[in-house]
Amino acid sequence: MAEKPKKPQKLKARLPRGLEDRDPAAIRATREMVEKIRAVYELYGFEPVETPAMEYTDALGKFLPDQDRPNEGVFSFQDDDEQWISLRYDLTAPLARYVAENFDTLPKPYRSYRAGYVFRNEKPGPGRFRQFMQFDADTVGSATPAADAEICMMAADTMEALGIARGQYVVKVNNRKVLDGVLEAIGLAGEENAARRLTVLRAIDKLDKFSADEVRKLLGPGRWDGGEEGKGDFTKGANLSAAEADVVLAITKTREDWKDAIAAAEAYLAKSEVGQAGVSELEEIAKLVTASGYGADRIKIDPSVVRGLEYYTGPVYEVELLLDTKDEKGRPVRFGSVGGGGRYDGLVSRFRGEPVPATGFSIGVSRLQAALTLLGKLDTRPEFGPVVVTVFDRDRVADYQKMVASLRTAGIRAELYLGNPKNMGNQLKYGDRRNSPCVIIQGSDEKARGEVQIKDLVEGAKAAAAIASNQEWRESRPAQFSCSEADIVAKVREILARHDVSWG
Amino acid sequence: MAEKPKKPQKLKARLPRGLEDRDPAAIRATREMVEKIRAVYELYGFEPVETPAMEYTDALGKFLPDQDRPNEGVFSFQDDDEQWISLRYDLTAPLARYVAENFDTLPKPYRSYRAGYVFRNEKPGPGRFRQFMQFDADTVGSATPAADAEICMMAADTMEALGIARGQYVVKVNNRKVLDGVLEAIGLAGEENAARRLTVLRAIDKLDKFSADEVRKLLGPGRWDGGEEGKGDFTKGANLSAAEADVVLAITKTREDWKDAIAAAEAYLAKSEVGQAGVSELEEIAKLVTASGYGADRIKIDPSVVRGLEYYTGPVYEVELLLDTKDEKGRPVRFGSVGGGGRYDGLVSRFRGEPVPATGFSIGVSRLQAALTLLGKLDTRPEFGPVVVTVFDRDRVADYQKMVASLRTAGIRAELYLGNPKNMGNQLKYGDRRNSPCVIIQGSDEKARGEVQIKDLVEGAKAAAAIASNQEWRESRPAQFSCSEADIVAKVREILARHDVSWG
Repeated sequence: MAEKPKKPQKLKARLPRGLEDRDPAAIRATREMVEKIRAVYELYGFEPVETPAMEYTDALGKFLPDQDRPNEGVFSFQDDDEQWISLRYDLTAPLARYVAENFDTLPKPYRSYRAGYVFRNEKPGPGRFRQFMQFDADTVGSATPAADAEICMMAADTMEALGIARGQYVVKVNNRKVLDGVLEAIGLAGEENAARRLTVLRAIDKLDKFSADEVRKLLGPGRWDGGEEGKGDFTKGANLSAAEADVVLAITKTREDWKDAIAAAEAYLAKSEVGQAGVSELEEIAKLVTASGYGADRIKIDPSVVRGLEYYTGPVYEVELLLDTKDEKGRPVRFGSVGGGGRYDGLVSRFRGEPVPATGFSIGVSRLQAALTLLGKLDTRPEFGPVVVTVFDRDRVADYQKMVASLRTAGIRAELYLGNPKNMGNQLKYGDRRNSPCVIIQGSDEKARGEVQIKDLVEGAKAAAAIASNQEWRESRPAQFSCSEADIVAKVREILARHDVSWG
Repeated sequence: MAEKPKKPQKLKARLPRGLEDRDPAAIRATREMVEKIRAVYELYGFEPVETPAMEYTDALGKFLPDQDRPNEGVFSFQDDDEQWISLRYDLTAPLARYVAENFDTLPKPYRSYRAGYVFRNEKPGPGRFRQFMQFDADTVGSATPAADAEICMMAADTMEALGIARGQYVVKVNNRKVLDGVLEAIGLAGEENAARRLTVLRAIDKLDKFSADEVRKLLGPGRWDGGEEGKGDFTKGANLSAAEADVVLAITKTREDWKDAIAAAEAYLAKSEVGQAGVSELEEIAKLVTASGYGADRIKIDPSVVRGLEYYTGPVYEVELLLDTKDEKGRPVRFGSVGGGGRYDGLVSRFRGEPVPATGFSIGVSRLQAALTLLGKLDTRPEFGPVVVTVFDRDRVADYQKMVASLRTAGIRAELYLGNPKNMGNQLKYGDRRNSPCVIIQGSDEKARGEVQIKDLVEGAKAAAAIASNQEWRESRPAQFSCSEADIVAKVREILARHDVSWG
């Protein structure tokens, strides 16, 4: 006999793994950041466009970061007509879909920007969330390096608009064609070598973590992560010869003058049209940004930047913060890349029969916000709460409510205490908790005189701190005073002005 | 023998069903609306909080609008640890989870607001999207009707902040306890009658679509939607007797004075404590809003408001637009409800061992935006685009880029033409397309003289329109003129001022 079903258990309230709830300071900081970025992008003539949070999976497929796992990394579900839908993984793939679908009605070149949450079905970790915000800008329909140069200048301006001083960031630029040219000369051109080229890209992407010797193993026969053969996991290499690995390392080495890197691979580059085009595009970008006054302290050509994504076809860029700081436990934190992008001439054209050049840039807003917060560049102090009108006499809630309404009409944030009014101490504690500048109290005595008591909580806190050492000071600036009902707004305004309360 | 696999077909770029891409005017309108709503909510002392777009499905379950289909209506997927996750269906269920999880650290009462997209796995239709924006405000931890009264006043203030004049909207208030009291007196109290009570609620919710006689069928034996027995689909009724149906209709009838409705059900309400509590809460709300100066033209007690959601436990409110308009085809459009809410004392407490009173309000931002757009209350004119610096001489892109940089430094939106520069006509057309106020042209002659040509596109368009009728006018206000390189910023500023160009 089946058991009688049990009463359902009390549910446990829990935020799903890898996600975060956001408090007022974080929300305000994001809003400020987004507004500042937006202002720069609009100054550059970019216009907003927004796509939904989900797309047909096939429209995203090609853009997944890891072609070895085409169905992983995204959150997907089947629609009632059996079509697969995925939450967007980034903001580039949806833009490519949007442009392809609306190609005939958009101005071309089409400059656009968008901020939004993206979703990754990955193992969460410290600072690695499954939902986070990106802010992208893209120019579709222009093949000229001037489009890439513009994006780099915009990235630099954006960092400064966010309060990062010149010298504390750098926009690094490279061109995939340079490396592609070298690989072509080595014999790694063509569709059939795509996998090996990707292995080379990934190896070079490790240059900021591994020594050149370790990267050389990844370019050659492969690497044991335990340090010697048979120890730890083995990562397959690209099987380049030692001489070939050398030239790849030579061309991707960070140097004072990027032309030294080009010179080091001259013999290979001379054999490749693609490689030569890459060098001349870099020269053009350098010329354009210099003419507009952006020196190498802001935009620097750096042959070590490759960016992992396979879809880039020309210039690639990366914004790096050059600041170091310590985390709460005193450990050094290096911020590194907070944004990047590049030219992706293939993404839109796969929907269309014609080539559609495009270049774009993405800021990791959540990541940059974490960095700016650690650096103290964002105001994360709690805002002042509203003025609290307390409830002394519960039969007169309507009177108190009216006081609140008159404060609000004057543009002053205010609220009625809505908890259990029996204990005035709790009401004052609530005001402290909300970081209120002041509370208003009216008992029956005050009511009879047509007065209220106003308690200045900021002054009160100072007084409480000073009381032991300076009795006099406390008495000279009373934290609580009476005023007539007609003067409430004026007196509250005085307190707001005294403590520099600005809401926003 | 298997066929050789075909080359993959060109992908079709398509927006998934029931979703929308949003253009600059729509994005700007949403931003303006959200900012105005936010300002009102903050004036009332509400603070922001944001939860992620997804929650564990069990945390949402109870809150689905339709208990008959508990697994429908939401987009869900299984996480790698087999737990079901769903995209949020509304902003109330995630708030309940958040408050329950952070109960001890939040100030209480806890007033908060949040705007965000919600997702519904439903059949899309005209104006019915599967992703849309809501803006919610909730007060958790206060059982007093003053909390409900506050939300109603805030809703009224919000409508006026959005440009909807007094008299063009109304906030309707009712209390579930009044109807619950009548149903209790009829004998429909208790868990075992939950399904019948829900049927009654749904029937009353139809009063704005059906006549009282049709609703009477839904309260009684049921209704054939073809009009007579056996025709069309049959909707099961609540099986009330004719006398019982009468009293339910009497208490839920819209009346000039809501107390007449109470009087009509007096005999039943007298028997129910819940019903009497409901009446006295309505009286308290009426007293509070009246004391704060909100008359029945803004906040009106209306016994016909029940709201479909089963989880409401006390006051319920609904904001209705009283304006009519016509759609593009000239058909009359009635906007009806653009927001609503109520008291839901059970939603947080199901996560906790103690009762947690809560009341909240939700604005359908996307829906309200559609209404305001049709009413002409939102500025949907295209914004001015950037000043376009054209490329006359492709060897001098760096010079043009520098002009663009100097305009941007002066705070003027500007861009370099990035398309193929061979045809100046196309560059001018692009400027028109972008709605640019003016374009700048510098050929080699101008360069030699240290000058540029500025073409005022707004004046140019006027001139083109006027040319047939008024040759003279055209000549008196030249749409194109020369100026020295040093004066570009000043001259462009003159044009911006003349045409009242403001970017925002």
